[in-house]
Amino acid sequence: MLKESLISEFQKIVGKDNVLTSPEALKAYSYDGTTSWIHEPDVVVFPTSTDEVSRIMKLANAEKIPVTPRGGGTNVSGGSVPWHGGIVMVMTKFNQILKIDKENLTATVEPGVVLQDLTLRLAKEGLFFPPDPQSFLGATMGGIISENAGGPAGVKYGVTKQYILGVEVVLPSGEVIHLGGRTLKNVVGYDLLHIFISSEGTLGVITKAELKLNPLPQARKTLCVVYDDVSVAGEGVFRVLENGVIPCKIEMVDNWVINRIEEMMPIGLPKDADACLFFEVDGIPEVVEKEAQKIAEITKQYGAKEARIAPNMDEANKYWLARRAGFAAVFGKAKQVFAEDVTVPRGNIPKFVKKIRELAKKYDVEIVVLGHAGDGNLHPAVLTDPANKEHYERALKAVDEIIESAAVEFGGVLSGEHGIGLEKQKFMRKVTEPAVINMMKGIKALIDPNNIMNPGKIWE
Amino acid sequence: MLKESLISEFQKIVGKDNVLTSPEALKAYSYDGTTSWIHEPDVVVFPTSTDEVSRIMKLANAEKIPVTPRGGGTNVSGGSVPWHGGIVMVMTKFNQILKIDKENLTATVEPGVVLQDLTLRLAKEGLFFPPDPQSFLGATMGGIISENAGGPAGVKYGVTKQYILGVEVVLPSGEVIHLGGRTLKNVVGYDLLHIFISSEGTLGVITKAELKLNPLPQARKTLCVVYDDVSVAGEGVFRVLENGVIPCKIEMVDNWVINRIEEMMPIGLPKDADACLFFEVDGIPEVVEKEAQKIAEITKQYGAKEARIAPNMDEANKYWLARRAGFAAVFGKAKQVFAEDVTVPRGNIPKFVKKIRELAKKYDVEIVVLGHAGDGNLHPAVLTDPANKEHYERALKAVDEIIESAAVEFGGVLSGEHGIGLEKQKFMRKVTEPAVINMMKGIKALIDPNNIMNPGKIWE
Repeated sequence: MLKESLISEFQKIVGKDNVLTSPEALKAYSYDGTTSWIHEPDVVVFPTSTDEVSRIMKLANAEKIPVTPRGGGTNVSGGSVPWHGGIVMVMTKFNQILKIDKENLTATVEPGVVLQDLTLRLAKEGLFFPPDPQSFLGATMGGIISENAGGPAGVKYGVTKQYILGVEVVLPSGEVIHLGGRTLKNVVGYDLLHIFISSEGTLGVITKAELKLNPLPQARKTLCVVYDDVSVAGEGVFRVLENGVIPCKIEMVDNWVINRIEEMMPIGLPKDADACLFFEVDGIPEVVEKEAQKIAEITKQYGAKEARIAPNMDEANKYWLARRAGFAAVFGKAKQVFAEDVTVPRGNIPKFVKKIRELAKKYDVEIVVLGHAGDGNLHPAVLTDPANKEHYERALKAVDEIIESAAVEFGGVLSGEHGIGLEKQKFMRKVTEPAVINMMKGIKALIDPNNIMNPGKIWE
Repeated sequence: MLKESLISEFQKIVGKDNVLTSPEALKAYSYDGTTSWIHEPDVVVFPTSTDEVSRIMKLANAEKIPVTPRGGGTNVSGGSVPWHGGIVMVMTKFNQILKIDKENLTATVEPGVVLQDLTLRLAKEGLFFPPDPQSFLGATMGGIISENAGGPAGVKYGVTKQYILGVEVVLPSGEVIHLGGRTLKNVVGYDLLHIFISSEGTLGVITKAELKLNPLPQARKTLCVVYDDVSVAGEGVFRVLENGVIPCKIEMVDNWVINRIEEMMPIGLPKDADACLFFEVDGIPEVVEKEAQKIAEITKQYGAKEARIAPNMDEANKYWLARRAGFAAVFGKAKQVFAEDVTVPRGNIPKFVKKIRELAKKYDVEIVVLGHAGDGNLHPAVLTDPANKEHYERALKAVDEIIESAAVEFGGVLSGEHGIGLEKQKFMRKVTEPAVINMMKGIKALIDPNNIMNPGKIWE
């Protein structure tokens, strides 16, 4: 419980309406996009300026009260759950797009801007921000930066960190600093900007960001490529790339997902296929036409049964809606789903999906494969039911083995885009050298000596 | 002077031939690509394995002897000069390309690999490593990573940090750690990989790196676009980009450079032009054809006098040879040249080049403009002669004002790709918030408590 006097200090800073302590409010801000972890804060505050954030941080730091910053709360590894109580600092009202600069291809945004709102505004100017986490309807820029969000477009465009030129950060002390800048090239001392990106809210509060934008591609083209064998589909991914075509998206769904999608919204996906790859290419019209044909050729050459080029945007949109519905389809079919975020070098996708199939047999559980095959970032999902303890235990073992085989056997990493949060701490300790963890903890202690920023995350 | 016993320890580790202490050797390793700063080491060692580096570091750390790692020594801000003596650790014999993985589009290299050698090897596999510092004939991968090298291709492909997936590092303690990995997506705790990239050899010794590669573009096309006014050329840069064409290079040379190039090697550049922009586009053949035409259209629409599309590779190569000769031309014409590395947001290039012209008048010195206009990274060069003290003082003042106007007035940074080294410490202190510098120093103290790694650089 926080002191009453502190609550009234917060009210003075952000206004009465922007400080919530009702049981309903505390409950509403106790979980993230998964609802797998729940812990209530003591108070919820909604700042709308850097100065307000700074004043709140000063009070919190003096009193050593935990602060968990959050935006849309769409993250899926526990990052925005106030695990040690204290203050949840909600950035959703701190949400202005401050500047769109067409000449520099940059935008300046506040942390609470929802990605979808930004995307729509930028499209009017013929621009876009490439990272595309599939939670774009609710995800906010501060969280996207703090988690270094990815998405399907990673294969061509990379991830969030490649599009953040600079940030304003309020440190735990309340001090305001500026890292990076507004230029594409910048080598001025250590790259602290990148330490804050993907730090999961454990080092400070991002209050402003300078984004790098791209001109909006004039045309897009989508393909649905059908396979009899999911491993062959895995090979298709790198065969296309090694032949010089870099699609903006290469997504994979397996037979189970295809059939669940067809149950939910029949769009004519091949129900007997072992897997499909969805490709999207973008660029000037002549290019996308040419590249789409080349993908069809290459994939057929390397064992695809069929390559359907969507004849128009309506057809293309259907495929992408289906792909997005894939996750919902998975979550709708089980009491609990462990949706992993492992990433392997692309060349190892065929072996890795074979391994997943073996694990499903070994533990007698349903494991579904879907994800961003183009950059090796798969989201294998293990379906289970916590009420069936024996099944649940088997599912947990399967999850462990998926993560370990990806990170160790196949030279990958345990999280491609979701972060460590609360979910992957055990694995983080296992796969990370002690000297590296100590270095990270040293940096944490340097910047946040009282450990008030989102405590309990990444390591504990 | 180092103890004799230590020299013999080094000899035991790397072999007698790989430890140099002759006056000639110490002199040869006392400067970098500029020869502006000179300081001799006490000993030069050439390790060829991680284990050797580790054993040398353990000895150096125990005795608190400075260690300055270097490769080709082509850097230009003093980074590889052993400012406090001690050990120069030369990586040029530690130079194997360990693996080229076409399926994953990655390569594993040792730090002494020369970029040009890598480029030629990769080309045979139809691959390339996009960063292209113009010192590629001598620059080695360890240095390229430690300085986060850029180059002309930055406009489309970004800089070195975007192509480093992971590194092996020997810490000052001798401990070997691994940061990053082999995948495109990776969010596992703080991004320490990026702290080591661009740390200018002040945190540890890079002994291995995992590089992200691209498939080699099938075709290229070059344009030389001619302007009557260098500011209008500056505008041409962002007009092309905002119209959706992203060339892989946009380079600028002004009238002075054009005339020096024509003196050295007449290739028919327009001697009366105030400036030229060289563009290169790459991709599949149909694309480069289309994009080259579009650049010609857009630049003419926005005030270019003429846009020449090189009809063949011979003509294209001439333009690029001319562009590379530009720097040599500048350095050949003055006793001393201050070649700056400022970077401004692209939209501010026209105003910034105007400002440079004003400063040339104000201080009555020759200031030449050339550089990577496409990403705002210009290299304005001030020509002077240290023997003419009065002129030299004016030149120094002009340099100061160029850097300050770029970094402050035009929202840029004081170094785009050359680093701070010895050269820009004064400016670094001026433009960087004290809290940020303290954070950098805190990280340095955490990782290198005895301050043995390349001491005297970045800050002192």
